[in-house]
Amino acid sequence: MAEKSFASDNWSGVCPEIMEALARANSGHSEAYGESNDLITQMAYKRFEEYFGKEVATFFVYNGTAANVLGLKQIMQSYHAVVTAKTAHLNEDECAAPENFIGVKILEIETQDGKITPEQITPFLHSIGFQHHAQPKVISISQVTEMGTVYTPSEIESLSDFAHSHNMFLHMDGARIANAAVALNMEFRAFTKDVGVDVVSFGGTKNGLMFGEAVIFFDRKLATDFQYMRKQSMQLHSKTRYISAQFQRYLTGNLWKKNAANANRMAKLLASEIDKINGLKRTQVVAANSVFAVLPSKLIAPLQQHYFFYVWNAQISEVRLMCSWDTREEDVAQFMLLLKKLRAKV
Amino acid sequence: MAEKSFASDNWSGVCPEIMEALARANSGHSEAYGESNDLITQMAYKRFEEYFGKEVATFFVYNGTAANVLGLKQIMQSYHAVVTAKTAHLNEDECAAPENFIGVKILEIETQDGKITPEQITPFLHSIGFQHHAQPKVISISQVTEMGTVYTPSEIESLSDFAHSHNMFLHMDGARIANAAVALNMEFRAFTKDVGVDVVSFGGTKNGLMFGEAVIFFDRKLATDFQYMRKQSMQLHSKTRYISAQFQRYLTGNLWKKNAANANRMAKLLASEIDKINGLKRTQVVAANSVFAVLPSKLIAPLQQHYFFYVWNAQISEVRLMCSWDTREEDVAQFMLLLKKLRAKV
Amino acid sequence: MAEKSFASDNWSGVCPEIMEALARANSGHSEAYGESNDLITQMAYKRFEEYFGKEVATFFVYNGTAANVLGLKQIMQSYHAVVTAKTAHLNEDECAAPENFIGVKILEIETQDGKITPEQITPFLHSIGFQHHAQPKVISISQVTEMGTVYTPSEIESLSDFAHSHNMFLHMDGARIANAAVALNMEFRAFTKDVGVDVVSFGGTKNGLMFGEAVIFFDRKLATDFQYMRKQSMQLHSKTRYISAQFQRYLTGNLWKKNAANANRMAKLLASEIDKINGLKRTQVVAANSVFAVLPSKLIAPLQQHYFFYVWNAQISEVRLMCSWDTREEDVAQFMLLLKKLRAKV
Amino acid sequence: MAEKSFASDNWSGVCPEIMEALARANSGHSEAYGESNDLITQMAYKRFEEYFGKEVATFFVYNGTAANVLGLKQIMQSYHAVVTAKTAHLNEDECAAPENFIGVKILEIETQDGKITPEQITPFLHSIGFQHHAQPKVISISQVTEMGTVYTPSEIESLSDFAHSHNMFLHMDGARIANAAVALNMEFRAFTKDVGVDVVSFGGTKNGLMFGEAVIFFDRKLATDFQYMRKQSMQLHSKTRYISAQFQRYLTGNLWKKNAANANRMAKLLASEIDKINGLKRTQVVAANSVFAVLPSKLIAPLQQHYFFYVWNAQISEVRLMCSWDTREEDVAQFMLLLKKLRAKV
Repeated sequence: MAEKSFASDNWSGVCPEIMEALARANSGHSEAYGESNDLITQMAYKRFEEYFGKEVATFFVYNGTAANVLGLKQIMQSYHAVVTAKTAHLNEDECAAPENFIGVKILEIETQDGKITPEQITPFLHSIGFQHHAQPKVISISQVTEMGTVYTPSEIESLSDFAHSHNMFLHMDGARIANAAVALNMEFRAFTKDVGVDVVSFGGTKNGLMFGEAVIFFDRKLATDFQYMRKQSMQLHSKTRYISAQFQRYLTGNLWKKNAANANRMAKLLASEIDKINGLKRTQVVAANSVFAVLPSKLIAPLQQHYFFYVWNAQISEVRLMCSWDTREEDVAQFMLLLKKLRAKV
Repeated sequence: MAEKSFASDNWSGVCPEIMEALARANSGHSEAYGESNDLITQMAYKRFEEYFGKEVATFFVYNGTAANVLGLKQIMQSYHAVVTAKTAHLNEDECAAPENFIGVKILEIETQDGKITPEQITPFLHSIGFQHHAQPKVISISQVTEMGTVYTPSEIESLSDFAHSHNMFLHMDGARIANAAVALNMEFRAFTKDVGVDVVSFGGTKNGLMFGEAVIFFDRKLATDFQYMRKQSMQLHSKTRYISAQFQRYLTGNLWKKNAANANRMAKLLASEIDKINGLKRTQVVAANSVFAVLPSKLIAPLQQHYFFYVWNAQISEVRLMCSWDTREEDVAQFMLLLKKLRAKV
Repeated sequence: MAEKSFASDNWSGVCPEIMEALARANSGHSEAYGESNDLITQMAYKRFEEYFGKEVATFFVYNGTAANVLGLKQIMQSYHAVVTAKTAHLNEDECAAPENFIGVKILEIETQDGKITPEQITPFLHSIGFQHHAQPKVISISQVTEMGTVYTPSEIESLSDFAHSHNMFLHMDGARIANAAVALNMEFRAFTKDVGVDVVSFGGTKNGLMFGEAVIFFDRKLATDFQYMRKQSMQLHSKTRYISAQFQRYLTGNLWKKNAANANRMAKLLASEIDKINGLKRTQVVAANSVFAVLPSKLIAPLQQHYFFYVWNAQISEVRLMCSWDTREEDVAQFMLLLKKLRAKV
Repeated sequence: MAEKSFASDNWSGVCPEIMEALARANSGHSEAYGESNDLITQMAYKRFEEYFGKEVATFFVYNGTAANVLGLKQIMQSYHAVVTAKTAHLNEDECAAPENFIGVKILEIETQDGKITPEQITPFLHSIGFQHHAQPKVISISQVTEMGTVYTPSEIESLSDFAHSHNMFLHMDGARIANAAVALNMEFRAFTKDVGVDVVSFGGTKNGLMFGEAVIFFDRKLATDFQYMRKQSMQLHSKTRYISAQFQRYLTGNLWKKNAANANRMAKLLASEIDKINGLKRTQVVAANSVFAVLPSKLIAPLQQHYFFYVWNAQISEVRLMCSWDTREEDVAQFMLLLKKLRAKV
């Protein structure tokens, strides 16, 4: 097994800058639970304010599932429904955590590329006011999507306009939000706050952090009492400073950008190498750090002996290759070398 | 504000050995979610097996609240009740997480020292078989208790015998289990598995770890399907190796014992210094790392300007002073010096 | 076994006027789910408006547990707590339904007579703003209480003033609200709406109805979206007209008063007969339709062979004797006769 | 508005035999909560045993949503999933009650006729053992389906074989189970217990009852502790005898069959009348008591002024016409007369 895999960006480790920040934070006593005397946490909040404006409310939780579930629970009642792409992590990869903890129905939309549009949401509006149906209240999008695609700001704005005109909210699962910012070559706020997103799950673990995720509300009123719900939801870290220190550093000196830019660049490189091979077909645009491609089915198992990666659609031999903050050109080169070697054999 | 507080053992930082272990774990890629190719996680499981036997089932979660809630949810139905001390963290300090996530009733017992007995539980048995009452199913104890006291193995065994003879389970909140082991001068299993405890929340964050807690089941059958419930409960860490690395190190070379022994020793020192002062009264036995004492009410605010600590019972000016793995003799000395100085003034 | 028991007022049947109303309602088709074309339901709402004013919002559910749980869920978040008497039905006799479905903690107050006061609630206010504690949000009282006592309007007003001054609500479990109205010789609104109660579970099944209970909100804004929550909570009856017809009749021509007056009068008669017997001791004031008394322990089993009733406190041989809309003077006389006969024997 | 509608079989009233049974049950006192001294309830249980065998466990709840949700909750954990047709009442018409109260995910299958097959369920099996996905545990079918179609016993058996071979259960929503029995001309057990169904929601309200539904388990072991869960779920009726009396009568002298046979016969009559009209197209087989047909869109509103019915699919002007136990030939004739008259005009 090679040291680097193309399985997921959460197979990679923690980047050295974050390890240093954790070491620096590890000095003396600090108020627990992120209370006001925990200065590292206060500094981290400041970073988010620099990026998103003074009125942002930031809360740290342990992971992305929690960020999604708690961010949604805060703005929904149990008789509400959230509309999302069928492929959304929220829908498919959280073992029904939203159903279980918020008690809501997820209304799913089939897509080819993981992106949804107002037109696809419209049919669900018929349920509004009908007491037998869960009431659509939130649209949730993933940025980057699970298919590696990226919404443009105007696509997001059309969704937020649609949401707000129907008394709904727009939620963004930003597990890979840094990769999206790099892909769009924009600041975070340009495709979140400035285009009407209400709540964001702001991730970092897939881009070099150890643990922790931020739930951010652009309207502080939406965040009322969130601290109690977080605690009740088992997501309040006693030693919060160790999450805060990571985000404080991550949002300083564009560390997030450095890491995400590398991952995205490696994905583009990997895609271009794959495109050079006759007969291999890529199935999604490479916007961020993932490459979806159809490989000859016989190659998959031997390749996986050296490099783990996920088969996305077994029926058509489609695989997902994910690059990370620490993927190097030589990792791509070696992978391609093996791929070519195996291909020659078969 | 002094660098060290006596507020809680989760105000302290991470001990250097754990920081080193995290750095060592931070090498290359590793399978996410603690799956079988994450060798660090497999090594950590082994450590728990060394302490508790081959048949133990160990699961990592993010924090103590989650360990308690998930450990209980696994062995309860929503119409069950858990019997515990009124002061139990489970009852008073988890913002109703057990009620919310398991859906159960907590039946509370008033105690003076945080410890409960079979005699106190007996009255609740009248509910068994009466469909209008939640059915008592689990007894939960904290070891160390929230009042700083420690159950003896025979006290625990009498509770587990009682539980099992009524078709109930015995659960232990071991947020400070290392301090208990040091206090009893025993191996963990001597006061858990060997005396009939069924499930333990095995903590470390209060004794020098950064994050993470283990839920351990002594009968693997009790743990069936726990992984799905953990994921659904938002408690599966993608980069599990960073929790595992901490526990792997913590349970190697008696690191847990070194840290807890220091905390316990400092509490004894602090108590003995307090006892030297006329008119101060301690209110609980110092068995582990906390000291409960009644201070002159006028001293509390000025003392807290330098050393934060919690007022436990404002009506009688009772405070809780908590020592940690990193509390030093000079920290105790300086605190006492200030206390005496302030006392002279008033 | 005698045809009449003193077990509970829900052992009795349905009064003839209600049976007639059900028969009358059973004509032709009617819009399901209580929608606007179900005229019987609209008429029932009107009755409630006559009693409580135009701004009242009335919703029918199936039973008292549901009325309590849904009424509370509507005005609470899961991280809130409800303060109530330890003996409250909500706390002791609903198999933890509030914990399970609202997810909240119940903070219980020990009482002698089932009634609580602002002074007893004050200590719980210390939790407000502390993120580790469930946040007190509702005070719930039972009128009549489970101990057969009745709050005066001024007692209720002191609780609602207290509640509102702390940003809390006052909820009333009115399973026996008609018996309270008769006891107080007042209209319903005099001890509910007019003294600041926010939500009432308005019961009738214990006073001659077949099934159904009303949740009433005195401020319509509090009731927003309740219909979805009711449906999701499995409490929307398709053939709603059969609940509505009962309440429509119950609130016409003072049927509720006739039934409750009989039950209360019979309890007073029973109490006075018991008082005539040397050595029997009653333990609660007879305000409504229940009599609590200490009987010689040897008499209980033989009495129960003819008349079922509940032993309330086995340790002191305290029993509860409950009268109903259909209890007759001869039922009381025969019961007393048997009691005296058995007493003579022993 | 005509006295009879074709909206739904729960717009109709209560059949006279049931009204009589309720009147008969209304005599004297009876033990509350369906306990063992409530003889009417014991007799109703006996009826179910006569139909399904001694080993059946029967529980009464208030309505069909509750029967579905509680029956499923009893055999599922929150991390399980239930597979069902997209059109299932469970999925579309219970305001997310299963998600909210069981906490599970519903995996939906698109169908043309409301019926699902093992082949359609197979793809969901890939989730088994993958901790990020809710685990498929139950297949739920509606008999009659929401599209008016009826499963044959062999179709059901193929589903139960499939379920059991994958460690899953088969659940049946029998809101219209009597109509199915008539359609198949079979005893209930021939298409439930005898072909491997595990749990049935046995309805009656849509076929002449006032309220109440039965949850039946064919293996008593599956029903362990159900009574606590029912109470906690707010579905235990204090005056249970009034549900029991209805089912006792319903299952005596084939009352269920008489009512359902009329409804089914009227649907066939209505369909045959529609078929006589050129240009009208029916869209589902008429197996039970509903008729699905495409009407000229201009006719719908004027028709609904006299006879309410639901538009099923507005895009194609498809309507659902539902017959009931009390639909008469003249109701059908008058409806057709109006339809023809309106058609002539347009």
